Amino acid sequence: MASTGPINVIAVSGSLRRDSFNTATLRACQSLAPDDMTIELFDPERLAEFPLFSEDRSAQGLPEPVAELCDKIMAADGVLIANPEYHHSMSSVTKTMIDWVSRSPDKPFNQKPIAITGASTGPMGGPWGQYAVRTCFIPLEGLVLNRPEVFVKSSKTKFDESGKLTDNATAEELGAFLGAFAGWIRTVGGQAR
Amino acid sequence: MASTGPINVIAVSGSLRRDSFNTATLRACQSLAPDDMTIELFDPERLAEFPLFSEDRSAQGLPEPVAELCDKIMAADGVLIANPEYHHSMSSVTKTMIDWVSRSPDKPFNQKPIAITGASTGPMGGPWGQYAVRTCFIPLEGLVLNRPEVFVKSSKTKFDESGKLTDNATAEELGAFLGAFAGWIRTVGGQAR
Amino acid sequence: MASTGPINVIAVSGSLRRDSFNTATLRACQSLAPDDMTIELFDPERLAEFPLFSEDRSAQGLPEPVAELCDKIMAADGVLIANPEYHHSMSSVTKTMIDWVSRSPDKPFNQKPIAITGASTGPMGGPWGQYAVRTCFIPLEGLVLNRPEVFVKSSKTKFDESGKLTDNATAEELGAFLGAFAGWIRTVGGQAR
Amino acid sequence: MASTGPINVIAVSGSLRRDSFNTATLRACQSLAPDDMTIELFDPERLAEFPLFSEDRSAQGLPEPVAELCDKIMAADGVLIANPEYHHSMSSVTKTMIDWVSRSPDKPFNQKPIAITGASTGPMGGPWGQYAVRTCFIPLEGLVLNRPEVFVKSSKTKFDESGKLTDNATAEELGAFLGAFAGWIRTVGGQAR
Repeated sequence: MASTGPINVIAVSGSLRRDSFNTATLRACQSLAPDDMTIELFDPERLAEFPLFSEDRSAQGLPEPVAELCDKIMAADGVLIANPEYHHSMSSVTKTMIDWVSRSPDKPFNQKPIAITGASTGPMGGPWGQYAVRTCFIPLEGLVLNRPEVFVKSSKTKFDESGKLTDNATAEELGAFLGAFAGWIRTVGGQAR
Repeated sequence: MASTGPINVIAVSGSLRRDSFNTATLRACQSLAPDDMTIELFDPERLAEFPLFSEDRSAQGLPEPVAELCDKIMAADGVLIANPEYHHSMSSVTKTMIDWVSRSPDKPFNQKPIAITGASTGPMGGPWGQYAVRTCFIPLEGLVLNRPEVFVKSSKTKFDESGKLTDNATAEELGAFLGAFAGWIRTVGGQAR
Repeated sequence: MASTGPINVIAVSGSLRRDSFNTATLRACQSLAPDDMTIELFDPERLAEFPLFSEDRSAQGLPEPVAELCDKIMAADGVLIANPEYHHSMSSVTKTMIDWVSRSPDKPFNQKPIAITGASTGPMGGPWGQYAVRTCFIPLEGLVLNRPEVFVKSSKTKFDESGKLTDNATAEELGAFLGAFAGWIRTVGGQAR
Repeated sequence: MASTGPINVIAVSGSLRRDSFNTATLRACQSLAPDDMTIELFDPERLAEFPLFSEDRSAQGLPEPVAELCDKIMAADGVLIANPEYHHSMSSVTKTMIDWVSRSPDKPFNQKPIAITGASTGPMGGPWGQYAVRTCFIPLEGLVLNRPEVFVKSSKTKFDESGKLTDNATAEELGAFLGAFAGWIRTVGGQAR
């Protein structure tokens, strides 16, 4: 139960690019979170070690980096996903992460509060991509925050060269988003599974 | 232009499982195709060599197995995709394939006739998965066959132990599907790009 | 708050057909609900009086049948929707209902627990239709039950001539669905809005 | 066959609002079309006479305004739809139009070239709405143009008080869109059905 104590969130970026705006968005979230929320970023270099998903491989047990993420999700009060949109859908990295985590007998996403955002260099910010990610959590029974939906669009103009978020409006949006996520975790978190 | 001559199709399975029903569906298609259509199955073991998608990796040039698939798509009159549905969406392997091929400067999917099917052991046959795959081809400008849509459901009951399709109704459905695909290729194939 | 007392649900069918299998499914739900859940069916003849949605018409105030449904939703602990799938999407009647209700300044769907099912005469039971309905409740902030998802497929074989559900497996599925909905209402119902 | 002669298109707006930006977008398209394309706007007041869709009503024959639209679609080389997005989906008016037209035994949408756009006052321009409309044309076998996709966003800033499009960038986008639609009609129009 996370009903009154501090909240810890594990964050996963669906991009492996070193200077990814999605990873940068999650780093920005770390400092924009409410005081009682701590956000750990799952190391993108660890995510890069996930193999392509295969049921045969999965039958031999979870690969080590997958098991590590599963443990972190199980221990967390919520999961924050930043998804880059490719081709009107989620990134293959986001989907690979979901396909693998779903194979854990612990069902890490089941009844877990989840919040989804994403950044893109284009003018829309990835509407179809976020929507695609949400869909996966119907059968996996993740509890996805409805709103606010934050689309970090035209991302090249919103971060400096070091990847620091410099756009105040986006910072406010993300702050409100994380505040709503904290409220959502307090409402639905800690459900019997 | 494929307007009157023989048609060659490259087929890709979104599952790496050795005994995959999706791969088995594509093998069945090879013998169910119209006389003037040849279907080559892209080797699943070669697909298994695709790395996770990363823009940084992509900036160094296409990995060899990706380049090989791109060449085969460029040379083909159409692309046939069998997609397993995971979590109300396409498989991460299907999406990885699409994300990588889309990075080729040749734009292999642009104006290319495409047909999508899929198999699942469940009672629906993967409706959301096929729909998710279609969506990607809006921005990539693939020309996806509308109908018939074939959902190979309850697949465990439709193939024998060697992976041979034994269900007559499914064979008829796939035959009609491939016939419609041939017609579609003759209508839209060979467009100026 | 519906945390311990009896639960009352308002049910809306997205079909105006007199012998609609979707309406029949909701009638079946009335007797399959847990003991502490009462389901009222919104009169399909009243729904048939909804005008086509128009913002100009909406600016003059809610039409009377719309206002009546809004009041019933506001007073209920949850909303149950049975949606017929037309053309891989929700029915226009379901969408008309949602478009109108969303115009109430009371925001009847906001933080309201919602469960979605549907019947079809075809072999799938309407997977895309239910999915389309769900999507609307992201921005409207309805709280949609994830699972179980019930697809009443091949509906002609599952009801008798009077519209009574005669298929035991479907009855069990709907019973489990309503039980899960009761649990969901107890978890998230009565949230501050 | 419309392979070389003039092209005539019937346009339908999914909004009944008198000052609708979607209808205004279609009016703008009338003057932005290529020289050999004529666009007729289906009278929104006639669309407003469509009843809510009901299979019982449909069994009595198509209502007169529906039959009129069906005839116009049958006679046209293509259909242009402007869809307002409501609640991450298409408008109920757009869906009502589709549900009714689909009941014609002539199957007016079958193998018909279709282009979809839309306007919204918000910052995105209706990405989910256009996507929802596309989906319907998979089973109806409409031939939907892939790209360019035009999203007329922040529409209040792009039309004058009389509903005339004043934004040059949007005019250029719509012009390119209509040019691509003409090319699409010449490629796939006039198919055997």
